[in-house]
Amino acid sequence: MSFEYLVDPARGPQWAGVLPGRPVPYVLRRGEGEHAMLFRDVFTVLLSGDETENQFGVVVSDSPAGDVIPTHAHNATHETFYVIEGTVRLFFEDAERQKQSQLLRAGDFGFVPAGFAHAYQIVEHARIMGTLSGGFERFFQHMGTPTDSAGPDQPPFVPDPPRMQAAAQQHDMRFLPDHTWPDA
Amino acid sequence: MSFEYLVDPARGPQWAGVLPGRPVPYVLRRGEGEHAMLFRDVFTVLLSGDETENQFGVVVSDSPAGDVIPTHAHNATHETFYVIEGTVRLFFEDAERQKQSQLLRAGDFGFVPAGFAHAYQIVEHARIMGTLSGGFERFFQHMGTPTDSAGPDQPPFVPDPPRMQAAAQQHDMRFLPDHTWPDA
Repeated sequence: MSFEYLVDPARGPQWAGVLPGRPVPYVLRRGEGEHAMLFRDVFTVLLSGDETENQFGVVVSDSPAGDVIPTHAHNATHETFYVIEGTVRLFFEDAERQKQSQLLRAGDFGFVPAGFAHAYQIVEHARIMGTLSGGFERFFQHMGTPTDSAGPDQPPFVPDPPRMQAAAQQHDMRFLPDHTWPDA
Repeated sequence: MSFEYLVDPARGPQWAGVLPGRPVPYVLRRGEGEHAMLFRDVFTVLLSGDETENQFGVVVSDSPAGDVIPTHAHNATHETFYVIEGTVRLFFEDAERQKQSQLLRAGDFGFVPAGFAHAYQIVEHARIMGTLSGGFERFFQHMGTPTDSAGPDQPPFVPDPPRMQAAAQQHDMRFLPDHTWPDA
């Protein structure tokens, strides 16, 4: 684990350059990719819009039990939730704007398109794969902080409100703190 | 398991209508989705371009050991390979047009953008998740055949050459039978 770029950001994380940044083939081994810490979650970008003509990006998150991703909506980003390991409660507004709460286990899949409020809670330590409209995958780096560790054995990163607002604005998403959910 | 639509295609598979066909939220449980049998592989569409403004689709494949997806290239489709379970050998031309052969295990990830020849071989029974440029996810239904079973306990479906050519043409991809690979 190396945090020297937090002191000297010019040095950058070791993963810089792991993704090619243009549409050419590559392979990543488990644990490789662009890691960022956000709260207690490690988000790893496996593919970005730079490799897909901005069509989509792919992110894997590792999250400890109890974590909550607060309610928000993306104005222009479609997002998937595929549970690789663990258990996650996904909250979302459905097509009739009814509030839904669904427990997702390994192999289950959720989809939330642009414009729909959603949140989720980690019920059991979870590994989740998400495909997102191209560009949004960098949100986790912009709100969180780059790290070279793929594991949960590191201090949480809690962004300050200006950093949160800047990242949300940059990625065209809104937090909805007044939203409540059933089963939450 | 129900095959009556193979006798009377107008009845359609039971999964018809499982995906909303427009950008609204939904959840699928493990084993749900649009299943198609192609050779000995079951391809399950979890998300299509209809739900993502044609940005991307998501497919899970279940494939027995020994299966080979022959060499091909997509003219306009980017494609990912995330190994959920099992072992897969991915063959691809890299940015320098060198032929690569990489063994992917659970948690490993491969990316092949439009225009690059690739193939893969199932080394150990594998479950693979792929994200594809929107629309290509239907290829497996067009070259294969719809089925209501998510499991491998069903007869293989071997398309005849005209069906293969029609599906390839419809989805703007080329088979490259003269290609050879190291370690194949």
